[in-house]
Amino acid sequence: MSHLTKVKEWLSYRPDLKVVDCTIRDGGLMNNSQFDDTVVKAVYEACLEAGVDYMEIGYKASKKIFAPSQYGPWRHCNEEDVRRIIGENDTNLKIAVMADAEKTDYKTDILPCDNSVIDMIRVATYIHQLPIAMDMIKDAHDKGYQATANIMGISVAPEHELFEGLELLAESEVDVIYVVDSFGHLYGEQVRFFVQKYLEYLSDSGKTVGIHAHNNLQLAFANTIEAIAIGANMVDATIGGLGRGAGNCQMELLLGFLHNPKFNIRPILKCLQEHIEPKRAELGWGFDIPYLVTGMLNLHPQTAIEYQTSEQSKDYIGFYDTTIKNI
Amino acid sequence: MSHLTKVKEWLSYRPDLKVVDCTIRDGGLMNNSQFDDTVVKAVYEACLEAGVDYMEIGYKASKKIFAPSQYGPWRHCNEEDVRRIIGENDTNLKIAVMADAEKTDYKTDILPCDNSVIDMIRVATYIHQLPIAMDMIKDAHDKGYQATANIMGISVAPEHELFEGLELLAESEVDVIYVVDSFGHLYGEQVRFFVQKYLEYLSDSGKTVGIHAHNNLQLAFANTIEAIAIGANMVDATIGGLGRGAGNCQMELLLGFLHNPKFNIRPILKCLQEHIEPKRAELGWGFDIPYLVTGMLNLHPQTAIEYQTSEQSKDYIGFYDTTIKNI
Repeated sequence: MSHLTKVKEWLSYRPDLKVVDCTIRDGGLMNNSQFDDTVVKAVYEACLEAGVDYMEIGYKASKKIFAPSQYGPWRHCNEEDVRRIIGENDTNLKIAVMADAEKTDYKTDILPCDNSVIDMIRVATYIHQLPIAMDMIKDAHDKGYQATANIMGISVAPEHELFEGLELLAESEVDVIYVVDSFGHLYGEQVRFFVQKYLEYLSDSGKTVGIHAHNNLQLAFANTIEAIAIGANMVDATIGGLGRGAGNCQMELLLGFLHNPKFNIRPILKCLQEHIEPKRAELGWGFDIPYLVTGMLNLHPQTAIEYQTSEQSKDYIGFYDTTIKNI
Repeated sequence: MSHLTKVKEWLSYRPDLKVVDCTIRDGGLMNNSQFDDTVVKAVYEACLEAGVDYMEIGYKASKKIFAPSQYGPWRHCNEEDVRRIIGENDTNLKIAVMADAEKTDYKTDILPCDNSVIDMIRVATYIHQLPIAMDMIKDAHDKGYQATANIMGISVAPEHELFEGLELLAESEVDVIYVVDSFGHLYGEQVRFFVQKYLEYLSDSGKTVGIHAHNNLQLAFANTIEAIAIGANMVDATIGGLGRGAGNCQMELLLGFLHNPKFNIRPILKCLQEHIEPKRAELGWGFDIPYLVTGMLNLHPQTAIEYQTSEQSKDYIGFYDTTIKNI
């Protein structure tokens, strides 16, 4: 699609573009997934009213690695916990969970889809974990779920491995393959490059390309709409941007941008005001200078997250100097 | 320049791209331009060390309209006030001031360039004020200054008037014509549209296209780098994004993006930490949901600015409902 084509399409939209809410799942990285039922229910109802297509309600994480005594129910998403919130979920809103490669007892913990209110398994994987991720995708598919492959950390992945991975995924059971900017390092041009590459490798297979952005450089929303313009058709966002470190693409910005009249921003603003924004001081997500530093330098945000919760969190120069010295 | 060309240029840069710091000028809209000399001097020195090309130190506003009893020195930029900060400014950092059409006694208040340490007059104009702006540009040019035309509010300007204005400006004495997203309404595709149009109308004249973005939709930085990719060569930013309402493109993000080794992010982070960030609570600039609402609806941010300083500032739904009702 050329620019000239696009400027004739200011007011149109793609009905097949799906929006995924990751508020509870990605936000759970800031509080060990310890959200009260009230909040999870409020996000569910906001998504429902807002016309969001999928809600990712948490992780299917191994209880051996993530002890239930330390992590809240949305780290494991036991069937009874999920049903306590959404009942039979007889709605158009589909439910997703994330399963991390090497951190999930998928063979035992993921029930057959017929016995579950969960609709989609999102397999998060670094490129070197792809063989196990492929097995997880097959397991999910065979159990009757939709499956995604969320290839993390692509700003530090060897491109020849990444592209070989896309060739394998093109022939797999996976439904969606995500461009995931884990480090919040990508600029618009780089997002364009990756989405175009993914589409090249995957278009013949009929698979969908997705985008999951982080806000370390205040580009989560911009990169998401750039990916949409190039052809990404599954799009992640969170209410208030709640998510790891600098957070994610804000759902309220995304729905304000999308033209499909089925989307409605007001329930999202209401949930943001009543349930998410009041948690900002405690959870502490959102853009700040330490994230700019790690994002710019293509580093994992973990050191910035730790700095944000330390006493010297406003010593930007101290963080910059230490980070530069250590690389 | 096609995408294919650009992906071969990840590590290159355009030496002719100029960065303009507007911290004191645009930030002055949040405190009636009442910055202490210490802060103005700190911004000046940070720009100098960071390799920034221009510092816009304030407005040349009419003392009849903006009484010196109510506004600080950076609303009028008397020659002696500017010299108190920068002396003779025997540096590579050029000094700019903004002159608003219909709010400036330019014939009397702007000295001949030979008698001033100011280098550039930036004429801010709505499209319907262009005749007076053209006279201001001629006045500045005849007095020996560089001159820019900053056409504000283009997201609500009739395009046939805007394009006629560009034809006039192409034949004028102006050096730079700015795409100004006053309402913070433009998405990347729209920025691309406007910058391409400006370049079409202006490229034969050899004039430069500039970009001045606001952060109402968290796109100030993204839109700035999009404009750069299309060919904008004069680029506005402010330290910490300090500016009216949701603020501007953050200088620290911009310098982190630019590849010209003359730019240096560290002095900007230092100034941000020591002088700008400590003013956030008092001045109250930066993205928040009311700006999303006015930006999305293509409205002037004034109602959102007022709401932000009111007691109910976190009643997002209240602001959304009132705004929707009133349009």
